[in-house]
Amino acid sequence: MKDVSNAYEALIAHDRETQALAQIAGRLGWDQETMMPRGAAPQRAEEMGALEHVIHARRTDPRVGEWLAAIDESTLDQVGRAHLRHIRRSFERKTRIPAALAGELARVTSEAQGQWAEARAADDFQAFKPVLENILSLKREEAEALADGGDLYDALLDDYEPGATGAELQAMFDALRPRLVALRDACMGAAHQPETLTGQFDPQKQMRLARELARAFGYDMSHGRLDKAVHPFSSGSGLDVRITTRTSEDDPFNCFYSTIHEVGHACYEQNIDRAYLMSPLGQGVSMGVHESQSRIYENQLGRSAAFTGWLHGRMTEVFGPLSVADSQDFFGAVNKLHPGYIRTEADEVQYNLHVMLRFDLERQMLSGDLAVADLEEAWNTRFEADFGVAVDKPSNGCLQDVHWSVGLIGYFPTYSLGNVYAGCLNEALRADMPDLDDKLVAGEAAAVTTWLSDKVQRHGGLYEPKQVIEQATGKQVSVEPLLDYLEAKFGAIYRL
Amino acid sequence: MKDVSNAYEALIAHDRETQALAQIAGRLGWDQETMMPRGAAPQRAEEMGALEHVIHARRTDPRVGEWLAAIDESTLDQVGRAHLRHIRRSFERKTRIPAALAGELARVTSEAQGQWAEARAADDFQAFKPVLENILSLKREEAEALADGGDLYDALLDDYEPGATGAELQAMFDALRPRLVALRDACMGAAHQPETLTGQFDPQKQMRLARELARAFGYDMSHGRLDKAVHPFSSGSGLDVRITTRTSEDDPFNCFYSTIHEVGHACYEQNIDRAYLMSPLGQGVSMGVHESQSRIYENQLGRSAAFTGWLHGRMTEVFGPLSVADSQDFFGAVNKLHPGYIRTEADEVQYNLHVMLRFDLERQMLSGDLAVADLEEAWNTRFEADFGVAVDKPSNGCLQDVHWSVGLIGYFPTYSLGNVYAGCLNEALRADMPDLDDKLVAGEAAAVTTWLSDKVQRHGGLYEPKQVIEQATGKQVSVEPLLDYLEAKFGAIYRL
Repeated sequence: MKDVSNAYEALIAHDRETQALAQIAGRLGWDQETMMPRGAAPQRAEEMGALEHVIHARRTDPRVGEWLAAIDESTLDQVGRAHLRHIRRSFERKTRIPAALAGELARVTSEAQGQWAEARAADDFQAFKPVLENILSLKREEAEALADGGDLYDALLDDYEPGATGAELQAMFDALRPRLVALRDACMGAAHQPETLTGQFDPQKQMRLARELARAFGYDMSHGRLDKAVHPFSSGSGLDVRITTRTSEDDPFNCFYSTIHEVGHACYEQNIDRAYLMSPLGQGVSMGVHESQSRIYENQLGRSAAFTGWLHGRMTEVFGPLSVADSQDFFGAVNKLHPGYIRTEADEVQYNLHVMLRFDLERQMLSGDLAVADLEEAWNTRFEADFGVAVDKPSNGCLQDVHWSVGLIGYFPTYSLGNVYAGCLNEALRADMPDLDDKLVAGEAAAVTTWLSDKVQRHGGLYEPKQVIEQATGKQVSVEPLLDYLEAKFGAIYRL
Repeated sequence: MKDVSNAYEALIAHDRETQALAQIAGRLGWDQETMMPRGAAPQRAEEMGALEHVIHARRTDPRVGEWLAAIDESTLDQVGRAHLRHIRRSFERKTRIPAALAGELARVTSEAQGQWAEARAADDFQAFKPVLENILSLKREEAEALADGGDLYDALLDDYEPGATGAELQAMFDALRPRLVALRDACMGAAHQPETLTGQFDPQKQMRLARELARAFGYDMSHGRLDKAVHPFSSGSGLDVRITTRTSEDDPFNCFYSTIHEVGHACYEQNIDRAYLMSPLGQGVSMGVHESQSRIYENQLGRSAAFTGWLHGRMTEVFGPLSVADSQDFFGAVNKLHPGYIRTEADEVQYNLHVMLRFDLERQMLSGDLAVADLEEAWNTRFEADFGVAVDKPSNGCLQDVHWSVGLIGYFPTYSLGNVYAGCLNEALRADMPDLDDKLVAGEAAAVTTWLSDKVQRHGGLYEPKQVIEQATGKQVSVEPLLDYLEAKFGAIYRL
């Protein structure tokens, strides 16, 4: 970088300290879910509030606007311009939202999380209705402040997937839907049905094998750690990226595939070019690209015939003979389609159908076409139409996800975008590494991390999200590779 | 509180957020010593630096000075005046130190910790000498800025023990020294010598018993947790106070008495009046008072004949028959005097002699009477005179403690002050609870926490340090109770 002005230096130094504080907030979040004594919650809320306040004040500091205005962008190199792109986007978004609205949103969504959890536990949508109405109305205000006359949904989506639009995602879902439904119906109706793994699996042994899996995929334990938590997650960037998983004695796949999923997120954060550490480029570039990493590790790699072959052998060594004795049958058991209400437990074929439902309903709620009062009925009607099963209670229906309660409107579709991106990357990866299955069958998955690191992960925030994927694959993003992959894989499993 | 001005409200709100950020810094420190992946160290240093920068900027914010000037103290109640006392002291100290000096001190001492560790590992005082010279010179500058023409040592001491003076501590040490030396010599020369506990003690069982000990003394696990770390410590205030200990297979007392010591610190922080949470009164009032809590738990209670009687029984249950089979002999084994170079491993009788040596040498170095170049020789000469043994290497001599490398000059004497305070409190406690030994012999030590909580802990920073002890005991602070207690206890053990 050369010829940078003082304003640029000052802006970057200021931003770097803010990034460091944001990393600390992430670390506290990790602590809260893994280590914090339960009685510490009220104090922690105040500590987090203080830190968030400081971070918000730094991100909306008027000096940031002055520095941005003073910088001559033509003097900057590619990295410098990318820095500016991120800082400007964040500053403009944050300063457009009135401080009173930002405060109210923070307060309401912080409270709503508990209210949602209570309503879900009581299966009482009516109790949550006024809360969600309030959130929707505040998010609409926020979207109006951000959209500047443009599309409200796009304005919110931009926070999670810069550059994406609702219309583009609608087209993506329209292209996915018919072939996914056809594949689901063919599998569900097939004469041959895969076996189900049964048995009891010692949680401590599950955790030991989960650590082995994490290492096999190239997760660097000297810059991370794996612990148990209620919900699996990945947290942190750069030199300190921690993941969690959970164990269920009769469902070891939950532990193993949660781990591999989080390893995907974590490898992305660990492998970003170290030169970008603590800079605006030092994190994954969008939710969609992030999910492409977790999904390709979890599904295209972790649930492949080759890798499940290796896993079958290791599980037999660790737990003794399995109820599914044959390695090919085990591949089927890992991938078996199952009816079910819950998105997070959905199989690869049906997962995106769960997302579509949420995408449509949240867009309708934001535009006002669907009143919150009518959400439960709309959800249940749509679910039965899409999945052929009537929802039995709100905790299996519109109260199952935390997202809306914390104000995440426009977040859901990035899950499907990640799946589509993972399909594109998988196609390119397999073309580049024809011997990939030979590696996976031996449990050697780290080579994939080397490839993904080179093509995607190391760039951090340097490029726009879609650009990252298109440069990595040398092709335009399309739903075809994902659908082709699913049809081939499940066609084989179900002998269609 | 009534009739408070807006300036007061603004000051307290500002300070509260700073306190919350300081708690976060403590949590990160805990994480660093217990959970952090080793490769994360450089990133953590930057994160901590950013947070410390924010905290320092808030504490020296010119608005704090304006608010302090605008407040009419006569309108405040006792708590309000105590708030002001703490905030004013901190603000005045921090703003007296030039920003460049503060920055340089932070940089140099942060680096020096590693340099000290290397020099200690290599037993090379010459390698550490220039570092310590630099630190001493910077600390002298700091003391001059703070002292305003007064005593330099007192100015530094004030950071750890507000209101104490070097002259007062000198008088305390002069009063302690002859009787401690006489007692030490009598014990070492006694015909009867206590037994030594030998054997191997499973570390996992040690940790389980350590948790039991922590609970027995009233440590609240719902607002804390116990983990392993290289150095035992207590961290945090209020609702989240975590402690660490360590295990050594052939020395279970290290684990148990480190735990009880840290439980003393932690109970103090846990039991401060909840109304003071996140206020300047929400932490222990001084290092000396803090150490009085850790020491009375560890020594006067934990190493008493009554409590070691209970511990002897529990250890026999947990580990099987001990090499010291008799409970009275076990009391002797726990308290046995041993020659040794290391302060942190010293017994109750000799501990304060180690502190005196450091107190004298650091005062001489600060005043310039002792050149850093001559420290090693001065230390070794003094040690041989005081302990009758020649120091064999710097890691057993003047390089053993981290304190000076991190700029802690004036900190050591607070350890002895804590011992003296613990002696005073023990005298009052035993007068108030004549049946205390009946409780301790049954492993019921939590009643002590109730007494100490009422007399000392709940007040947090409400009173001046010495005032806390004098109100709790109804007497002036004096060395007599500590010396009387030591002579009685060790007289019995050594049959003097």
